[in-house]
Amino acid sequence: MIDTAALAIGFSAALPEWVLPFVAGYDAPTTTSEERMALVHALADRNHVAGNGGPFAAVVADSSTGEIVSVGVNVVLSSGLSSAHAEVTAISLAQAALGSWDLAATRPGLELVVNWRPCAMCFGAVLWSGVQRLVVAGDGPDLERLTGFDEGPVVSDWAEQLHRRGIEVEQDVLRDGAIATYTAYGQSRALVYNARRS
Amino acid sequence: MIDTAALAIGFSAALPEWVLPFVAGYDAPTTTSEERMALVHALADRNHVAGNGGPFAAVVADSSTGEIVSVGVNVVLSSGLSSAHAEVTAISLAQAALGSWDLAATRPGLELVVNWRPCAMCFGAVLWSGVQRLVVAGDGPDLERLTGFDEGPVVSDWAEQLHRRGIEVEQDVLRDGAIATYTAYGQSRALVYNARRS
Repeated sequence: MIDTAALAIGFSAALPEWVLPFVAGYDAPTTTSEERMALVHALADRNHVAGNGGPFAAVVADSSTGEIVSVGVNVVLSSGLSSAHAEVTAISLAQAALGSWDLAATRPGLELVVNWRPCAMCFGAVLWSGVQRLVVAGDGPDLERLTGFDEGPVVSDWAEQLHRRGIEVEQDVLRDGAIATYTAYGQSRALVYNARRS
Repeated sequence: MIDTAALAIGFSAALPEWVLPFVAGYDAPTTTSEERMALVHALADRNHVAGNGGPFAAVVADSSTGEIVSVGVNVVLSSGLSSAHAEVTAISLAQAALGSWDLAATRPGLELVVNWRPCAMCFGAVLWSGVQRLVVAGDGPDLERLTGFDEGPVVSDWAEQLHRRGIEVEQDVLRDGAIATYTAYGQSRALVYNARRS
């Protein structure tokens, strides 16, 4: 017999308390991809210092108007959930706000803006989310080299795989800002919570 | 200025109400991998008929004792979250029950049992979860062919990539049961909620 009294029946994650006031006080525009990435970098810089999780942030935005539909940061540490990366958090919060698991069906033209090419898990999360554009600050080994994080294996034609499913990719948007974030994180010797175990 | 009043600050997912009573009434043993997979198949068969999501289920269990630590089903439709696949749900519920994002650090020797090789997203979710064994009913194109689901691109050496990170894989456990589930789902013409958009 299975002891059902010990089983959890739900899980949840929430933004750290500092995020909404921070966003409310953010007075720069978000009209262009670069401007939205600047917001992402500002959130990522704050997140790891605040101790909520890794130096990662993401926003879901309307590509045409620049409206911010959701704001996410990595909350693995504060939520206790290994899947609560910035991308999953931003996508889930956009879906919670819009009341649908399929953003494309509910509000076409949304994009995910994030401060590096998503990890193995988040690459898949983007595929199933309904966002129709992915904006990344960079790609390649710099993130792992500077932070010690393991990003996992992603297929080499990842951008083409997204394209086939109706998701366009814009790359190298404010790449230097991401490098600065990861450099600061690496130098802070913060807890790298999902480093390679081997 | 960003309108923070429209932003969601949290998200959550819960098991459908039928799951705990179903598990409480499940009187077969869960000592072996095959027995745990039989429970997964029973949950998957019920899940899509109940309308909570796709024909997928997963459990986190103690590989040595067979104790069931968490039970998950695909709750994409009922939660409104595209990432609430069976694997993410089972992993998140285990982490909620144990109070840690790192299952390996909190309770070594746990495994994830699921009724097919995980999709692109869930493959990554397994990597970061802290489970140390993955038990799958099967792998290959049969799932997509029978159900119409898109599983996304996963690296060809996925089992080796898991092994490198300390996660052993057991394959083809009660494969026929998975095929039967997907065949029934395909014939029911249920909503395929993440089918290829192209």
